[in-house]
Amino acid sequence: MSNKLTKRETDYSKWYNELVVKANLAENSGVRGCMVIKPYGYAIWEKMQAELDRMFKETGHENAYFPLFIPKSYLSKEAAHVEGFAKECAVVTHYRLKNAEDGSGLIVDPEAKLEEELIIRPTSETIIWDTYKRWIESYRDLPLLINQWANVVRWEMRTRLFLRTTEFLWQEGHTAHATKKEAVEESELILDIYAEFAEKFMAMPVIKGLKTASERFAGAEETYCIEGLMQDGKALQAGTSHFLGQNFAKAFDVQFTSKEGKREYVWATSWGVSTRLMGALVMTHSDDLGLVLPPNLAPIQVVIVPIHKTDEELDAISEKVNDITKGLRSKGISVKFDNRTTYKPGWKFAEYELKGVPLRIAMGPRDLEAGTLEIARRDTHEKRTISQNEVVSFVENTLIDIQENLYNKALNYRETHITEVNSFEEFKDVLDNKAGFVSAHWDGTPETEEKIKDLTKATIRCIPLNNKLEDGKCVLTGAKSEQRVLFAKAY
Amino acid sequence: MSNKLTKRETDYSKWYNELVVKANLAENSGVRGCMVIKPYGYAIWEKMQAELDRMFKETGHENAYFPLFIPKSYLSKEAAHVEGFAKECAVVTHYRLKNAEDGSGLIVDPEAKLEEELIIRPTSETIIWDTYKRWIESYRDLPLLINQWANVVRWEMRTRLFLRTTEFLWQEGHTAHATKKEAVEESELILDIYAEFAEKFMAMPVIKGLKTASERFAGAEETYCIEGLMQDGKALQAGTSHFLGQNFAKAFDVQFTSKEGKREYVWATSWGVSTRLMGALVMTHSDDLGLVLPPNLAPIQVVIVPIHKTDEELDAISEKVNDITKGLRSKGISVKFDNRTTYKPGWKFAEYELKGVPLRIAMGPRDLEAGTLEIARRDTHEKRTISQNEVVSFVENTLIDIQENLYNKALNYRETHITEVNSFEEFKDVLDNKAGFVSAHWDGTPETEEKIKDLTKATIRCIPLNNKLEDGKCVLTGAKSEQRVLFAKAY
Repeated sequence: MSNKLTKRETDYSKWYNELVVKANLAENSGVRGCMVIKPYGYAIWEKMQAELDRMFKETGHENAYFPLFIPKSYLSKEAAHVEGFAKECAVVTHYRLKNAEDGSGLIVDPEAKLEEELIIRPTSETIIWDTYKRWIESYRDLPLLINQWANVVRWEMRTRLFLRTTEFLWQEGHTAHATKKEAVEESELILDIYAEFAEKFMAMPVIKGLKTASERFAGAEETYCIEGLMQDGKALQAGTSHFLGQNFAKAFDVQFTSKEGKREYVWATSWGVSTRLMGALVMTHSDDLGLVLPPNLAPIQVVIVPIHKTDEELDAISEKVNDITKGLRSKGISVKFDNRTTYKPGWKFAEYELKGVPLRIAMGPRDLEAGTLEIARRDTHEKRTISQNEVVSFVENTLIDIQENLYNKALNYRETHITEVNSFEEFKDVLDNKAGFVSAHWDGTPETEEKIKDLTKATIRCIPLNNKLEDGKCVLTGAKSEQRVLFAKAY
Repeated sequence: MSNKLTKRETDYSKWYNELVVKANLAENSGVRGCMVIKPYGYAIWEKMQAELDRMFKETGHENAYFPLFIPKSYLSKEAAHVEGFAKECAVVTHYRLKNAEDGSGLIVDPEAKLEEELIIRPTSETIIWDTYKRWIESYRDLPLLINQWANVVRWEMRTRLFLRTTEFLWQEGHTAHATKKEAVEESELILDIYAEFAEKFMAMPVIKGLKTASERFAGAEETYCIEGLMQDGKALQAGTSHFLGQNFAKAFDVQFTSKEGKREYVWATSWGVSTRLMGALVMTHSDDLGLVLPPNLAPIQVVIVPIHKTDEELDAISEKVNDITKGLRSKGISVKFDNRTTYKPGWKFAEYELKGVPLRIAMGPRDLEAGTLEIARRDTHEKRTISQNEVVSFVENTLIDIQENLYNKALNYRETHITEVNSFEEFKDVLDNKAGFVSAHWDGTPETEEKIKDLTKATIRCIPLNNKLEDGKCVLTGAKSEQRVLFAKAY
């Protein structure tokens, strides 16, 4: 298989699919819509998990684990919730296979039919609130701050690696609070954590905002989101945090005794990010040569490639490399020395470009003599020859610089792709010819939102938090509007 | 709910169930046979995961993720494998729910029937070997050393928290090798890792051995296992490592081109440990007062309880405790200061005994004056008053001592509960009146093995590795035997 990628400008979507497979992040499996996450992709996901998990724990959250299966009757308890998920549920109806009597092979045993069907969790609010009913009695049991790392299943008709798969991995937080204020603050705290993670680790700038009623999570009173902008000008929802009000507490009858001795329904939040972040990471930074990974999430931060003709040369280089890797590792930098003799340096260079390793060091016999090495940045393609003595501090500083550079580059793209428009003609023109976010007045009705979507495929990505209020007219209907919202075509 | 536990000698099984629930490890959910792993239990599991994951990675294994679903046709490809798992499979047959036309509620949409049923993975050999077919072409692609952390489902009729649940969490390693020798070595390497983990972290001595043909994993040529002995004299299989021969390579047609240019089938292993280890941990060390956790896996290693009457006293104690916790944390020791005023010291003492915290420090006004504190061991109940100045080194040393003490105590129990017998009368007598492992000659036939099981409920737990060969007669049939094997009643 050639490692050459389709160019982004030729076919962005094809570029993405090829890159995910060729860089060994993931591939389609034999099961419709389900992917295999390959070791290199999974290593990035593990780094994401570790940082998020640390951030959750630092803010008082604990991990737990709830069942994969949700009895059909649980799902039905919250009306809006079931309406949102019933159409895309994997349903377990039987618990045994047997050999067909006619010898035709393995069949589902009709006698092993479940009395009540089980749904594979598309999200766990219902099974968790059924549990919280047993855990919450008094205000002393609140707040309850729980997260789980799990797989979930939503039967999507059109799937794409990482961005939309039938099964995906995620974390889902589910918290319970004594007051509305506390629950709203929790939703906002988590949104801040998600935004900080996106910006500091993924180097992906995001806009924090609220979803409109029609884009809200099924069962939520308010959905907060972070929205990123991909290089093709399409938006991507990267994480959501929901204020659930008392909807699930009422559906599952979860009340607590307050300090004043009154019985009250509990207030709730839920929030999640998923392996979709992997898709966002790829699409925010990568180029026509392959992945570009921010150092804070790169499984390999520095790769060292020896340039040699003879075994003696390789031995001499290896000895020097040993010192260098020790120095780098002592600073917590992950280094790989690729001393395979089955591949040539040029092949290795292309391979690590494809895999997005932030820094590549090459060292040959002349470098040994001169006490130098050549170091190349993946993001800017800049090459420099430096003294071996300064390698540790140079690498440390350059990794920080790459992290910042990637963020600033993405931020610059995003900033130049938020366009204010004041007519529907302008609106369509920007979508067709420039893409990115379109900032426009909207009359606040779901009907107009729907009509704009039908006409342009653009949806309201969010109403930015701390939005500026200004009088204006809806870009479609001309009706009165108090603020601009952000539209975009989206993943 | 009273925290008082049923005594082990009264009803060991009831003691176990109560302890798991009361110590906040896990509880039954509303879904038949599925448990909720509660935060305290999950924190222990996370510690287990972290150590095992480190050990796997240090020996060259990488993590990946494969689909939850297995098409029915995949499961059918390896004859012994499907025979072993078909009877306990959760089967997905539909992908949508809808509202019944007669208004009776949510039903499975008959029009959303899958063409081919999907099995929830009971283990992932089939979906993984379907993938390996795409990944393995040449000897350069081998060995392939992959692990995944995942949930699996086996439809068990009788379930018990952690020990046997319909859904459980585990890791499953799946490796591919160029030679039989390498694959066998891999199975043995993993068995050593499992044994080291059990002994060093769980403080649980284990016997390494081979399963008999009838106890082998469905599809394996050889199953290696580690067997622990619980305090009631019943054995528990704590981990298995399978040499799969070329069975799955042949079923999924996975061949590679050898260095010599020949096409050959790949050799395989698979191996796993699960949340069952949590049950083993509880049953190996705990007592009638609650959990006893080995320091190497305890989420809280030291708890500090202030003894005070006034707020001023609490403030003064807290200030001192602050110094102590800093000192302990700088050594990587996890400390909790329980300064809640809503509970009395006596209540807290019982609570942390129940939760198995290895060391408890109590500090009152007199300790402040004298520069002392009281420190109590959970394992021996020994209390000592020591100087505050020596607390860090004392805690460090005592945690090591507790870890060793728990192991030695369990080892001593195990060593005194391996009984050699030479007649079937003796065999039954030991099982009825002493329990533990019974070391006996066996004629090597599955028929005798089955008959002994029917007569006594004891199974062959393993043929110990490096077993001593000696001439003898089968304890049941009197037929010739070359070695003793270990029988026991088991979980």
